[in-house]
Amino acid sequence: MSDKYASRMSSVHRSFIREILKVTADPSIISFAGGLPNPRMFPVESMEEAAREVLGINGRTSMQYSQTEGDVELRKYISSRYASKGLDISPDELLITTGSQQCLDLIGKVYLDKGDKIVIESPGYLGAIQAFSIFEPQFVSVSLESDGPNLEELEQCFKEGVKIFYAVPNFQNPSGLSYSLEKRKAVAELVDKYGVIFVEDDPYGELRFKGEALPTVYSFLKKPGLLLGSFSKIAAPGFRIGWIVAGGDRRDKLVIAKQASDLHTSTVAQAIMRTYMLNNNIEEHIAIIRETYGRHRDIMVEMIDEYFPEGVETTRPEGGMFLWSTLPDGCSSMDLFDKAIAKKVAFVPGKPFYANGGGENTLRLNFSNAEPDRIEEGIKRLGESIREFLN
Amino acid sequence: MSDKYASRMSSVHRSFIREILKVTADPSIISFAGGLPNPRMFPVESMEEAAREVLGINGRTSMQYSQTEGDVELRKYISSRYASKGLDISPDELLITTGSQQCLDLIGKVYLDKGDKIVIESPGYLGAIQAFSIFEPQFVSVSLESDGPNLEELEQCFKEGVKIFYAVPNFQNPSGLSYSLEKRKAVAELVDKYGVIFVEDDPYGELRFKGEALPTVYSFLKKPGLLLGSFSKIAAPGFRIGWIVAGGDRRDKLVIAKQASDLHTSTVAQAIMRTYMLNNNIEEHIAIIRETYGRHRDIMVEMIDEYFPEGVETTRPEGGMFLWSTLPDGCSSMDLFDKAIAKKVAFVPGKPFYANGGGENTLRLNFSNAEPDRIEEGIKRLGESIREFLN
Repeated sequence: MSDKYASRMSSVHRSFIREILKVTADPSIISFAGGLPNPRMFPVESMEEAAREVLGINGRTSMQYSQTEGDVELRKYISSRYASKGLDISPDELLITTGSQQCLDLIGKVYLDKGDKIVIESPGYLGAIQAFSIFEPQFVSVSLESDGPNLEELEQCFKEGVKIFYAVPNFQNPSGLSYSLEKRKAVAELVDKYGVIFVEDDPYGELRFKGEALPTVYSFLKKPGLLLGSFSKIAAPGFRIGWIVAGGDRRDKLVIAKQASDLHTSTVAQAIMRTYMLNNNIEEHIAIIRETYGRHRDIMVEMIDEYFPEGVETTRPEGGMFLWSTLPDGCSSMDLFDKAIAKKVAFVPGKPFYANGGGENTLRLNFSNAEPDRIEEGIKRLGESIREFLN
Repeated sequence: MSDKYASRMSSVHRSFIREILKVTADPSIISFAGGLPNPRMFPVESMEEAAREVLGINGRTSMQYSQTEGDVELRKYISSRYASKGLDISPDELLITTGSQQCLDLIGKVYLDKGDKIVIESPGYLGAIQAFSIFEPQFVSVSLESDGPNLEELEQCFKEGVKIFYAVPNFQNPSGLSYSLEKRKAVAELVDKYGVIFVEDDPYGELRFKGEALPTVYSFLKKPGLLLGSFSKIAAPGFRIGWIVAGGDRRDKLVIAKQASDLHTSTVAQAIMRTYMLNNNIEEHIAIIRETYGRHRDIMVEMIDEYFPEGVETTRPEGGMFLWSTLPDGCSSMDLFDKAIAKKVAFVPGKPFYANGGGENTLRLNFSNAEPDRIEEGIKRLGESIREFLN
């Protein structure tokens, strides 16, 4: 006997990626399917020290209920880190969330009525498609080009009226693509012109291993956007600590939604993260992650150049955790997936990242979480799979 | 310049209690307003040991992303604890949540279409009213009597068609009231008869310091209900770890909603809680909490008998964290609040706990988080305030 569920549940599905991850649990499979940071990069000893300090010195406070807005010292720290990059964001404009995934849920709660239009990159971040789907908006897709969104498409949909533009301008998941400086400015101009709320998700911005850091789109906006951040990729995701930058009335609404959702983010997880950040040199730690991921990316690109057949295009990101390959027109990466699994190598087919269909011939490759020798062997296997598949 | 928010936001408000807590931050005020467990009861040293074990031995895994369903060993532990109380609940029927507050959000997502009817006790748990309000249901109130809901009212609203009945049968927040064995059975029968989904929230069930433990309503149901649990009151709330019991297809839907909401509950918080539970004798720990809260409750009741004027009725709960007082008809506890604050004592006026109005003459008193000498002095002050107010 099945219950009668809310109508919204018919438009939200279990993450396809999580289903794939079950297939790839077999350790003999070399998997580029996950989207995980490399656990070798987790600062285990320093976190253990931070935990000892938190529970040893201030245990009772860190185990108690706490305010919905989040740990004030942690917010001050995030504020000061933004200041060091030229962004003036006060601790009172910050709301700590249970991972930056929760920001998407809270934005959906606060902004999205059923049928509201939300622009999403195509391909776009799957977690956002899932989170927003709960609120039954209408997704409008804008093509992501090698330097950012197609501006004509973007202006066209803004003209037709949209509420939100959700974007990942740095080393996007899934494509690894980033917006150029010109497109950042152009997007900001369009967003201001049409009064759209710009939601800028930036979990990967600090993972740049080549080229120059670019300013956020947020910094070019006249009407402030919503800026999302996370400790998941620079420290560790298991604490589930992210944040949203939102001033004034907006933050009040987001706080109300957060209170209704889970009261507040884990007090103890926030306290450990704050203590870790204050006691350690995070910039040095991030430098090590960058160097490591950069090496992984280089090896993967090199192997792709050697083993992938002609006619397969792959992005060359300067940061982040993902590469994105496009097979010749008419090829299905879903069909390729089965061939690849038979050769013990896995990736994520690109189709689920397209909110409005398309992308059947695309696929995502993660390079952060496989070691160099596995990358070499895995890309060889995948190259063979593609060759056989194309023949 | 204010944004255009989703229409649902007009029906959800910032918690009135949280606003009151700001007023009562002044340490010279004796506050019975909060709903906090007593931090003296937090097992700080054992949690610190658990954290050391988790981060020292298995640090990388505990800092990584993890499955939405929750830590499997923690679910096995919860399952075995239910088994020890005669409830057969498999680990696969459990979903770990970010505090049991998140269960309410997930239930809203999975079940509530706009306008769906949900029955709530009157007075009822404010956090539930807030969480469900996001989904714009129609609240139907059923009067809570000293032994449980008024059954005629309950059957009448079931007859008119409702989707969910949300209840806190043990030492309810705010009233401290519990369902008698007879009413538990009767409620189960009515729920089965009319095909209503029974949501049983049970954060306080283990905090019984007098009388005999009663079975859950869940255990009497033919069609399973949804049962909510939490470590917040028996260990510590700052970890934000709760759970929901939901079998089969239901759990699948809740997992999808959870994935969209925050991916999963903090891996490290779950691991520390699991390690603490497995390494310590939680029954002994709960016995200490019971003994302490029981003593606080007795002192508060004694002082009330001595200092509250005739015509003020107060519940005498056998467990939990709250007493509930009713002033004579026509008296406003909001007006009393101002008088009490002038005498440096605080409580929560009862009105916000009534989803459909009423309760102007009621108030909630917390006894878990004030020490005995403060309870004595605070109830004296409150008694004086009431006497002056009634004259």
